[in-house]
Amino acid sequence: MSKAASPAPEFTTHEEVMFFDTDVGGVVHNIAYLRMIETCRTKLAATMGMKLSDMAETGLFPVVVRTEIDYRRPAKLGDELEIHGRLEQLNGVKFWCAFTVRRKGDTENLITCRQALAMVQMPEGRPQRLPADWKDRWTTDSKS
Amino acid sequence: MSKAASPAPEFTTHEEVMFFDTDVGGVVHNIAYLRMIETCRTKLAATMGMKLSDMAETGLFPVVVRTEIDYRRPAKLGDELEIHGRLEQLNGVKFWCAFTVRRKGDTENLITCRQALAMVQMPEGRPQRLPADWKDRWTTDSKS
Amino acid sequence: MSKAASPAPEFTTHEEVMFFDTDVGGVVHNIAYLRMIETCRTKLAATMGMKLSDMAETGLFPVVVRTEIDYRRPAKLGDELEIHGRLEQLNGVKFWCAFTVRRKGDTENLITCRQALAMVQMPEGRPQRLPADWKDRWTTDSKS
Amino acid sequence: MSKAASPAPEFTTHEEVMFFDTDVGGVVHNIAYLRMIETCRTKLAATMGMKLSDMAETGLFPVVVRTEIDYRRPAKLGDELEIHGRLEQLNGVKFWCAFTVRRKGDTENLITCRQALAMVQMPEGRPQRLPADWKDRWTTDSKS
Repeated sequence: MSKAASPAPEFTTHEEVMFFDTDVGGVVHNIAYLRMIETCRTKLAATMGMKLSDMAETGLFPVVVRTEIDYRRPAKLGDELEIHGRLEQLNGVKFWCAFTVRRKGDTENLITCRQALAMVQMPEGRPQRLPADWKDRWTTDSKS
Repeated sequence: MSKAASPAPEFTTHEEVMFFDTDVGGVVHNIAYLRMIETCRTKLAATMGMKLSDMAETGLFPVVVRTEIDYRRPAKLGDELEIHGRLEQLNGVKFWCAFTVRRKGDTENLITCRQALAMVQMPEGRPQRLPADWKDRWTTDSKS
Repeated sequence: MSKAASPAPEFTTHEEVMFFDTDVGGVVHNIAYLRMIETCRTKLAATMGMKLSDMAETGLFPVVVRTEIDYRRPAKLGDELEIHGRLEQLNGVKFWCAFTVRRKGDTENLITCRQALAMVQMPEGRPQRLPADWKDRWTTDSKS
Repeated sequence: MSKAASPAPEFTTHEEVMFFDTDVGGVVHNIAYLRMIETCRTKLAATMGMKLSDMAETGLFPVVVRTEIDYRRPAKLGDELEIHGRLEQLNGVKFWCAFTVRRKGDTENLITCRQALAMVQMPEGRPQRLPADWKDRWTTDSKS
């Protein structure tokens, strides 16, 4: 890691819980959080140089290869949520992002989540190496 | 219409209402029915010769250009639903399908829906003529 | 309509097209627009006095009873969309909202949509009268 | 574990990949598998005595508290998938289910997934003990 490395990139998005996010149990459905996390992850990726508008043309996509998500407390209709994501680790051809979902202004985690991604060239589905400069650009828990 | 025309193609699919179909109002969310209808429409299209496995290769897709849907009575968690679709009308470059959603074994419509589709060549997005033999093959409310 | 009636309420929301909005045809899936429209409709309803946070408690929900949607041109991954909604008509126990989806800063409609809603008391599912003051508050194409 | 314990309950569901399951990358979107897994899990739960039609009335729901999912190979439009679920482990107030997604008749896993669930009394959100007889009824990797 170079001396000039920046802190790991992070990004926060905001969502108001809509009807389509909820289920008959009265709270947000477990799958709906993953859509919110994808929006956060996409904006985080854009700050790292991966633009959506480029991807459809180049066919080089960041692809989720593993998700771990813990549902700690439920969110409800109308809640204003903050989804926070950050680059956590570079690990060979994979990079890990970590997310939390909280109510706005609150410090309690409703959701914690980690996702591993790989850069994949579509339509062949061939994993690509991560850009060589990533591990020098940002301070992460990188493994060599 | 030729003398040998068959009745319009139709298809029935079955769905059990899952949590992800419902919302905090206690009933099926309005958007969820459109997913059920797409499944029925896709199976109906297969009987008409449009196979999913061909589409990704040829890039020729039946594309929804208009949906009209009436929500008459709500379905609930665990309901067993029958989605019935049929080819209703051929109209220039468009064809219309009509759908009902009912509880299994019931005659009351929960949902009625009509969708107009066009055959579109992707990625250019160019609408194609409907296959010439369609109006001879099936008895529909076709307009010339 | 009273002389003091305000223009019909309207609201604009913004969405960036995510992967989960798209399908293998390379464009936004037809159902995804309805989620964007629901978000716009919910914010529009809030300006009219219907707050999400109240609904779960009172059980009085604005329920979609009919949707008409025309898919005119497709949006693509990464597009920045503006969804514009306005109260269009009061009609007995129903009110109609009209929506357009456009690319940011563009004047061409990708999507036009109208939805009729009723105020429904859940869990009984009993439609309620619209608030008596609505037709005096706003200038709409109201039918008596 | 009693001598009379049965093998752990398992269930297999079938899905044909629809347009709404896919994204612009040309394959099934990562979130769509979780909907398929929920359908399998719900049918598996029914075999264990948890019926959807009872839940809305009793307010006692099996709630996902953790998901771990590995995306190994992508499924494509029109693929016929088999989702296999089984009760894997009883662990205090939680039970774990394990899932695989494969193409019909194939032995290669596209997706592997584990989910921990708790029985929660809604709307209070209070976790309940698992039924006392579960650990005697089925042979699982139960921890005391």
